[in-house]
Amino acid sequence: MQSLYVIKIGGNVIDHDAALSSFLMDFASIEAPAILVHGGGQIASKIGMEMGITPKYHEGRRITDDATIDLVTMVYGGLINKQMVARLQSMGCNAIGLSGADANLIPATRRPAGVIDYGWAGDVTPGQISTDTLCGLLALGLKPVVAPLTHDSHGHILNTNADTIASCLAIALSGFYTVRLVYCFEKAGVLLDVEDDTSLISLMDRKLYGDLKAQGKLFKGILPKLDNAFAAIEAGVNEVLIGHAMDIIANTGSNGLKGTLIH
Amino acid sequence: MQSLYVIKIGGNVIDHDAALSSFLMDFASIEAPAILVHGGGQIASKIGMEMGITPKYHEGRRITDDATIDLVTMVYGGLINKQMVARLQSMGCNAIGLSGADANLIPATRRPAGVIDYGWAGDVTPGQISTDTLCGLLALGLKPVVAPLTHDSHGHILNTNADTIASCLAIALSGFYTVRLVYCFEKAGVLLDVEDDTSLISLMDRKLYGDLKAQGKLFKGILPKLDNAFAAIEAGVNEVLIGHAMDIIANTGSNGLKGTLIH
Repeated sequence: MQSLYVIKIGGNVIDHDAALSSFLMDFASIEAPAILVHGGGQIASKIGMEMGITPKYHEGRRITDDATIDLVTMVYGGLINKQMVARLQSMGCNAIGLSGADANLIPATRRPAGVIDYGWAGDVTPGQISTDTLCGLLALGLKPVVAPLTHDSHGHILNTNADTIASCLAIALSGFYTVRLVYCFEKAGVLLDVEDDTSLISLMDRKLYGDLKAQGKLFKGILPKLDNAFAAIEAGVNEVLIGHAMDIIANTGSNGLKGTLIH
Repeated sequence: MQSLYVIKIGGNVIDHDAALSSFLMDFASIEAPAILVHGGGQIASKIGMEMGITPKYHEGRRITDDATIDLVTMVYGGLINKQMVARLQSMGCNAIGLSGADANLIPATRRPAGVIDYGWAGDVTPGQISTDTLCGLLALGLKPVVAPLTHDSHGHILNTNADTIASCLAIALSGFYTVRLVYCFEKAGVLLDVEDDTSLISLMDRKLYGDLKAQGKLFKGILPKLDNAFAAIEAGVNEVLIGHAMDIIANTGSNGLKGTLIH
């Protein structure tokens, strides 16, 4: 099967223009089929504040009320997505910016309200992805750039975690391509000491993950990313890497991988 | 050749939720290949005001400064476009929301600054449209929903008139499809008395247009639409109609056309 790269870029890189430019240049140079999934960054909160929308969170998860879903639809699906596409196009990369509503790519389920109502938050599973259309877009030579938005099939946009979207896309497409899923962020990979890039764990399996987690040795922010990574590898994705956004050329190559390889 | 409908929907319809819903239901029922081009509506100005961005115009044309291009990228490319796509998807229409930057569909040229600098305003010609990719998307069974945004191929989004985008798309695709271009707005068509829907001109040619214009009998706002319409018909588009947004089912049928037919 042909190779496909599913690459997630986090908000922290999006917020730093020089880092983002450098990343986009590298992404544009990938010749194989590739999908870029982007997070949100600080800009949505900044614009929200200007409009009088105060971000609400419960245990680190955003509560997406009516005003907030409109805000993230504008900022993630419009501003960030289209600016990224225009920049990739200027670099000769035939990017196409999409939300999960477009072409019904990522139908999702609104998270049921329990003690906490997360509002317009969408949960998604790999089985829901419209793989035929995605394969069709890739066959046209297009590079999808996916905003962290899905839809409920009842006319509403939903806010969905970008890491989860990336792993669902990777899993769903692993029946059609040899998929490498790469999570890019501002660290060299999974680190034993979050302040020290030389403490990188190059290779991680379930056992090591369980041990380190039990010992409290992993930075809390990396745990959801690792959970998504293991879910992906166990569901048929060939390779999952967690690495620095600046290492994307090495990490879409066939040797000299940098970052943490999940297996 | 197969039929293709290129349908432009104006801001006035977008601003009225009941009218928009009704229009989208009708659009969703079109079985033939179709492209929807939408304008902006009042919502961009409203959100801009909340963010402290004052709309600037020169002779009715928007001046798109740095803050304004970000605003319209968010609102046209994000909020309006994605909400419309989500609603069409809920009606069983496989819509895909796109700007002119996506898939390099509509590269444009930034309008040169003369006495007036229109800022990030893009001028486009039919020869610039990426027809191969558009045909590829239509062949996947997708219905493109196009925001009035283009790009300059140097990494910047540009603001482009939606009527012009619609006529350029119609002209560019007339080599591949039998194209009917339909301009939808809140009037029954071109009227001799703008307040009286029964004063409809059913059929208009260049001569009648010239005569009525010379006599000052046409509403000023309709003139650019008519110029685009005649440009389209003279460049190979099979049929151009100007009609009411509520008449879209009749106007995508094979008889009983309503509105003003340009020929």
